[in-house]
Amino acid sequence: MTEDVFRLSSRFAQMKSSPVRDILAVLGRGDIISFAGGIPDPTLFELADFRESFAYTLENYGPRALQYASTIGEPELREQAAKRMSRHLPTEPNQVQVTSGSQEGLYLVATTLVDPGDVILVERPTYLTAVQAFTLVGARMVGVDSDEFGMLPDALDDAIETHDPKLVYLIPTFQNPTGRTMSADRRAAIAEVLVRTGVPLLEDDPYGELRFEGESVPPIAAQPGMAERTVLLNSASKVMAPGVRVGWLRAEGQILRSLEIAKQGVGLQTAVTDQLAVAHYLATYDLDAHIAKVADVYRTRRDAMLAGLDARLPEGATATRPEGGMFVWVRIGGDVDSALILPKAVDLGVAFVPGWPFYADHPDRTTMRLSFVTNSPEMIDEGLSRLATAWGW
Amino acid sequence: MTEDVFRLSSRFAQMKSSPVRDILAVLGRGDIISFAGGIPDPTLFELADFRESFAYTLENYGPRALQYASTIGEPELREQAAKRMSRHLPTEPNQVQVTSGSQEGLYLVATTLVDPGDVILVERPTYLTAVQAFTLVGARMVGVDSDEFGMLPDALDDAIETHDPKLVYLIPTFQNPTGRTMSADRRAAIAEVLVRTGVPLLEDDPYGELRFEGESVPPIAAQPGMAERTVLLNSASKVMAPGVRVGWLRAEGQILRSLEIAKQGVGLQTAVTDQLAVAHYLATYDLDAHIAKVADVYRTRRDAMLAGLDARLPEGATATRPEGGMFVWVRIGGDVDSALILPKAVDLGVAFVPGWPFYADHPDRTTMRLSFVTNSPEMIDEGLSRLATAWGW
Repeated sequence: MTEDVFRLSSRFAQMKSSPVRDILAVLGRGDIISFAGGIPDPTLFELADFRESFAYTLENYGPRALQYASTIGEPELREQAAKRMSRHLPTEPNQVQVTSGSQEGLYLVATTLVDPGDVILVERPTYLTAVQAFTLVGARMVGVDSDEFGMLPDALDDAIETHDPKLVYLIPTFQNPTGRTMSADRRAAIAEVLVRTGVPLLEDDPYGELRFEGESVPPIAAQPGMAERTVLLNSASKVMAPGVRVGWLRAEGQILRSLEIAKQGVGLQTAVTDQLAVAHYLATYDLDAHIAKVADVYRTRRDAMLAGLDARLPEGATATRPEGGMFVWVRIGGDVDSALILPKAVDLGVAFVPGWPFYADHPDRTTMRLSFVTNSPEMIDEGLSRLATAWGW
Repeated sequence: MTEDVFRLSSRFAQMKSSPVRDILAVLGRGDIISFAGGIPDPTLFELADFRESFAYTLENYGPRALQYASTIGEPELREQAAKRMSRHLPTEPNQVQVTSGSQEGLYLVATTLVDPGDVILVERPTYLTAVQAFTLVGARMVGVDSDEFGMLPDALDDAIETHDPKLVYLIPTFQNPTGRTMSADRRAAIAEVLVRTGVPLLEDDPYGELRFEGESVPPIAAQPGMAERTVLLNSASKVMAPGVRVGWLRAEGQILRSLEIAKQGVGLQTAVTDQLAVAHYLATYDLDAHIAKVADVYRTRRDAMLAGLDARLPEGATATRPEGGMFVWVRIGGDVDSALILPKAVDLGVAFVPGWPFYADHPDRTTMRLSFVTNSPEMIDEGLSRLATAWGW
C-alpha cells in the first residue's frame, strides 16, 4: 500500500542506487578483501591532529562553532582553500564556496545549470556518483571517447557540435575510475576547444594531490581563458578525512552567486564545526607532509596491485598504470560481464566494482575498478589470487 | 563575459536568494537589534557538553569518526532519533534517515517526488526556505487558507480536488513564520482529508519541543493511517545546535529507500563526526533539562515581545501569541508594504523579516516575522521602540 502513496518524480524514477554504496553495505563479512570502495586507509588518518582541531574549534570559537553561519562558508576555511588552490591557479577567498564534500559541489552545479534533457558530456568511463547527481536533475549524459591521455579533443569538438551540451565534466587527474591523468598538452587542447565553443567545464579534482611519482600537472582551469569558465572542485575527503564532509569549489563571477543560492535550497550551509576544524587543521598542521606519508604507503600498494595483476591477468587483458590516486582500471575483453563474476568473487572473499555503472552510455561490461588504497600489499596479493579464481584466470 | 558562459537551468532561473540569509549577511553592525533570523541564543548552547561529545567521538570511535559511512546514517544516531520520536509515534531505528539539517530533508523529499510543474500545497504563509527548496525542483506551490488553528480542512479538500498535488507541506507546531500551532482536532480533520484523498504529507517539526506552556500535541503523522503516508522531519538545530547540521526524518516503506538514493546523489552522507557527537550527546546528557532551561528563557522573551507589541501596535494590527517556538507574526493591515519599512528600520537599528517571501502566492505585504529568541527582554523592548519609530506607530 505504501508503495502507492508517494508518486515519484520522473527524474527520480531514472535513479539507481550507487552500486558502490550497495556493495559496501553488504561487505559486513570481516574476511572479504575489498577493492570496491575508494576508501582511504583509516589507519593513516591524523586522528590526534583532528582531535586537537575539533577541541580547538569548540574552545577557541565557542558558541560560534555551534551556531548558524553563512551559506558561502567560513572565512577561515575559504582563506585556507584559496591558499591551497593558488599553488596552481591564483584564487581569492571570495572565489571559494564551501561544499559538504565534492558530491554536493557536483550536485549544485548540475541543478543550477541543467534542465531535464540537457546534455552533459562526460568521459568514457566516468565517476559513477557524478552520474547519479546528474541523473537526479534529469541530465542526458553523453560519453566522449578517450585514449590514455584523456578525452580526445576532436571527439569533444564533434560531441559539442552534435549535442550543444550545457557542461563538460572531467576528472583530469588520477581519474575515477581509470586512474588516468590527462597530459599537459591534452589539457591545452581540451581548453582550446572549450574556449572556442564557449562550453563551460566542471573540473573535479579530489585526488590530484595524491601523486606518487611524475610531474604535477595544473588543472585545466589554469589554462588560458579557462578560469572564468570552470567550476573547479576540491575536497578534504581523499587527502584529510571523508567523515567531516568538507569540500570547496572555485568559480568566478555570477555562477558563484548562483551556486550559493542553490546551496541555500539544498542544505542551507555546511557544518560550521567541521569547517572551522578543517580550517584549523590546514592552518596548523603540515598537510603536505601527511600527503607524502600517505603517498608512500599507497605507492607500495599500487605497485603490489600492478605486479599481482601482471602476474595473473589473462592474455589480452589490460590494466592502467596510475601515477597517483586510488584506482586501477582493468579491462578483460572478450564477452564476460564483470557484474556476473562479482557474486562468485564475494563468495570467494574478494570484492570489486563492475565497470558498467561508470559509463553514461554503451558500457564496456568486461571492465572493473580496483582500489589499491585500503589493503596491505599482502592482502592485495591474496585478494588478487581470489579474484583470479573467481574469473578462472 | 562570465555572465554568458554559464546558461542557467529554467528551474534555477526562478530561484531567489533567501531574504533572511541576505538580511543576516548585512547585519554586521553591532548596534542592530535583530528580530530577523530564527537564530537560537548562542549563550544557551551546552558548549561544554558538545566539547566533550566531540572529544569522546574522536577518542572512542577513532578513525571511524573520520571515515566514509553509510548514506542512511550512523546506527547510534538513528537509535537515539527513533527513541525520541517514539515519544509520540512508535519509530524503529530502521525508519530513520539522517539528514544534514531539516533543509536537506525538505529538499530530498521534493526532488524525489516533484516534477517541474507539480503542485505542493503549503500553508499561507509558509516557511520561506522550504519555498526555496521546492522552487529548485520546479514545484508550483499553492497556498491553502488557514485560521488560528492551522490549515482549513475544507480548503485543503478543495485544493486537492483542484490541483492534484504531489504533496502537502505543513509545520503544525509553532509554525514558521506565524508561531501558530494546529490543534489536535484540526490535526485529526486534516489527517482525515489526506487519508481519504491519498495525498502524502511532508510534516516539518523543528520547533515542537520548544514548548513554553500548554499541552504538547502529537504530530499529524501519529494520526490513524498517517504514519505510512508522512515524511516527518526533526532537527537538532533548534533544540541543540544548528552549526553541526544534523537532522533526521521518519518514513516507512519504499519512500525511505528512495530518499536514501536521492541523498547519495545530493551529498553522499552527513558528516560522521557530527552524527556520532550528536548521538553521544543525546545518549549522555539530559536534552529535556536543556530544553526546559531554554524554554524558560524564551518564554520570558516572548512575553516581553508580546507586551511590547501590545503597548505599541496601532489599531487594527494583530500579533500571534505562540505557546512555543521562536516567532511572532505581526499583521499591520492597511496598505503599507513591510519590505519598504525595512531599510528605515535598519537605519534606526532594528531588523525583521518582511512577510511577503513567506507566501507561495498572493502575499499579504503588511505582515512581518519577529523572532523573540535572540535578544534579552530589555533589548526586545528597545528594538520594538525603534520599530515603532520606523513604522510611525
